[in-house]
Amino acid sequence: MLAFIRKYSKGESVGHNPRPALHHPTLETVLVTAVLHALSDETRLSIVRTLHAEPDGRACGTFPVNVAPSTLSHHFKVLREAGLIRQEDRGTQRWTMLRVREVDARFPGFLDAVIAATEVASVRF
Amino acid sequence: MLAFIRKYSKGESVGHNPRPALHHPTLETVLVTAVLHALSDETRLSIVRTLHAEPDGRACGTFPVNVAPSTLSHHFKVLREAGLIRQEDRGTQRWTMLRVREVDARFPGFLDAVIAATEVASVRF
Repeated sequence: MLAFIRKYSKGESVGHNPRPALHHPTLETVLVTAVLHALSDETRLSIVRTLHAEPDGRACGTFPVNVAPSTLSHHFKVLREAGLIRQEDRGTQRWTMLRVREVDARFPGFLDAVIAATEVASVRF
Repeated sequence: MLAFIRKYSKGESVGHNPRPALHHPTLETVLVTAVLHALSDETRLSIVRTLHAEPDGRACGTFPVNVAPSTLSHHFKVLREAGLIRQEDRGTQRWTMLRVREVDARFPGFLDAVIAATEVASVRF
């Protein structure tokens, strides 16, 4: 029983990660419509903007967004599947990074233009 | 009766246009999320790309898209309300133009970056 609790307790280092592996598509397989869709939501755009200012990434509970955890999880999934973010588990925390270099290599100037656009045409930011 | 038919016949020049006036928002009132959403659909992106290559615009029935007229009409509405296109009736034809200068002035580099992105990451184009 103790072994079971150890194995499935959050943060236990037992050589087993109960979270499923995250899928990070290569940018070459991502359609531009998927990227545009991922960015067309105000919360997701806020996440991207936050990460763009923080090259080292951010722990998941620390984003300045006002949505339920399950909703936030969905937004991360959409961004991840559009190739925009990378997420990795570090101990008990999940870290999120913007895939700036890869996105810039695939879509030159695109991310900068979107970030600049949010600065002139968004009510929330 | 003849007057009635004249008044409501398509293309009759009777000083009355039976089509409702189209709303074209100023770019200053458009949110970047609305622009990104408008562009996140393959057909709408195709329309924008076609218009980007044709500064004089295009008559409505001539777009190389494979959708029903009512669907196309919806797509035009989404693009129009995002401030991306301007439409005007000329006799029996409705013409559509990309609002390139206005969009570029509001979101510098954005449209070019999106068009360039469609060239590397779209299955249809």
